[in-house]
Amino acid sequence: MATIKDIAEKLGIAPSTVSKGLNGANDISSELQQLVLDTAIEMGYKSKKMKKEENKSLCLLIKNMEYKKPDDFGYELILGFRQAALRDHWNVSIILADEFMQTEKYDNFMLRNGFLGGFLLGFTLQDPWMQQLTSTSIPTVLLDNYINNNDQVGSVATDSHEGIELAIKHLQELGHTRIGFMNGERFSDVSEQRRQAFLDSMASHNIQIDPDLIAYSHFNGSYVKEHIPHFIDHKATAIVCSSDLIAYNVIAEYQARGYRVPEDVSVVGFDDLASAESFTPPLTTIKQDRLNLGKDAYATLSWLLNGVSISKSFLRAKLIVRQSTASVNLDI
Amino acid sequence: MATIKDIAEKLGIAPSTVSKGLNGANDISSELQQLVLDTAIEMGYKSKKMKKEENKSLCLLIKNMEYKKPDDFGYELILGFRQAALRDHWNVSIILADEFMQTEKYDNFMLRNGFLGGFLLGFTLQDPWMQQLTSTSIPTVLLDNYINNNDQVGSVATDSHEGIELAIKHLQELGHTRIGFMNGERFSDVSEQRRQAFLDSMASHNIQIDPDLIAYSHFNGSYVKEHIPHFIDHKATAIVCSSDLIAYNVIAEYQARGYRVPEDVSVVGFDDLASAESFTPPLTTIKQDRLNLGKDAYATLSWLLNGVSISKSFLRAKLIVRQSTASVNLDI
Repeated sequence: MATIKDIAEKLGIAPSTVSKGLNGANDISSELQQLVLDTAIEMGYKSKKMKKEENKSLCLLIKNMEYKKPDDFGYELILGFRQAALRDHWNVSIILADEFMQTEKYDNFMLRNGFLGGFLLGFTLQDPWMQQLTSTSIPTVLLDNYINNNDQVGSVATDSHEGIELAIKHLQELGHTRIGFMNGERFSDVSEQRRQAFLDSMASHNIQIDPDLIAYSHFNGSYVKEHIPHFIDHKATAIVCSSDLIAYNVIAEYQARGYRVPEDVSVVGFDDLASAESFTPPLTTIKQDRLNLGKDAYATLSWLLNGVSISKSFLRAKLIVRQSTASVNLDI
Repeated sequence: MATIKDIAEKLGIAPSTVSKGLNGANDISSELQQLVLDTAIEMGYKSKKMKKEENKSLCLLIKNMEYKKPDDFGYELILGFRQAALRDHWNVSIILADEFMQTEKYDNFMLRNGFLGGFLLGFTLQDPWMQQLTSTSIPTVLLDNYINNNDQVGSVATDSHEGIELAIKHLQELGHTRIGFMNGERFSDVSEQRRQAFLDSMASHNIQIDPDLIAYSHFNGSYVKEHIPHFIDHKATAIVCSSDLIAYNVIAEYQARGYRVPEDVSVVGFDDLASAESFTPPLTTIKQDRLNLGKDAYATLSWLLNGVSISKSFLRAKLIVRQSTASVNLDI
């Protein structure tokens, strides 16, 4: 566990100032106090006060999502959530929810462990706990999923529609009309949202949609390979992907077949992982601001805990243009 | 002008650390450096800035909306916003924005008056200030309207889709299939959202849509009268309305022609004004939790002011069933 000295060294301030920050002393600014708290949380430091408040707990439940390394999709999401929650003196437990755990009812699990609210990441519509959310009485926030008619459940997401619209606009400006879409897995709310966003954006830009250029793979990048020959046969000149990991695989598969990115085919990712910038070529991608998405998830949960039934909260998407997209090459 | 010592005192750190921050020394963290710089800039404009801090102000701009009496649509919206904002020590000015005011640019108006953020209510897509929001640099929140691709602008709304879906489900359970929709005015985002919600909900319940039973009136209830004979000719047995004021007028117009509500025709409102309960008959309506919508608007603005680009935040809708809806009467 990190010590006060570690935090002081990281921030470049005196240990006594760190103590002031952790204890909410009046003679340091609220901004510095927040920075000290955020850093303490990030480094895994727990003060006596934080430990004392451990009975007030929220639970972050994770499935199918990497989150331990800074480049993992879930890393900043969880960091943002914890930073915001700990500022309000919540303890946050992080639990991997496997199939076995889900044999217990969600509400039972939460109540038995004293969790007053939950943030669920990476669950699919087929998970038992997802299905139970239609009637849960535990304030719960979902990433990228939505539950009808239960005002205890809210949802946060990046605005896929805006992001994919920006990508299509960008590709159209580069002259592309044979634009494919490599989606995440089936049976996922976010895949369906992005599929709809792709269809709507293509239509609003008057670009013809070729059903042969739309495929489901998996957000982690698997099952991409199988679709590539078909995309090549159908002369895709640009491919929008539902995640950066999918985009990495699309690029690798094209390159393995002797195609150049972006000279022969342009590729757009979705997420903007830390590694996107150092990919070959550096990836043009739709950025999800995951740190703020995590903070927004906490804010939404906090509203639910206070009886305000937020159903959905969306963050803006941004298109980060790097080198994996270029003007269309009609010779391929 | 502020000195290094002033900044050090403000932050509660050593003057030497402030110097390091200002000089970009390597042995303090980039976060702390940013904080020092932010603080320095802030204190550099001391006289102006301190004055601004004392009158830290947000502006609530209103058009086409009643808000002074508790039954007025805007009353609780404004109350909720002010309650939440005042808790964070903001002053909130309430200003009626007429056409003449809008001859000045929105950003000029806000800057000239020292307003750091705005919440706009009741504006339509044709208002000059709405059009200027695509490029405003003033953090701004809209009710029921949405601006593409400007991360300074967020939007809050009740989830119309969920609300209208609940109304259609309720009417279907009562046996209705000839369901009409009396919308608010044209050229309004919220009218278009609700129209789409009506079409989607009818489709998802496998109820045939009759274009003769869809009309635009005005959210304040005017222009309803003109459509009633047509709705009667086309045998509407139930009418979903885009506001309670529209519903009141629909009911009055049917009653004036000798029809009974709900025996001959069922009517559903949207809003749940305080008067809905005491209407004759008491109105079945889709409730907008306007107090919490106002609080949510402040929360969204507060995120924007802190650099988190929330694009949309939706509150749950609820169906409040009273006496203006009943089982279908096929004899009319």
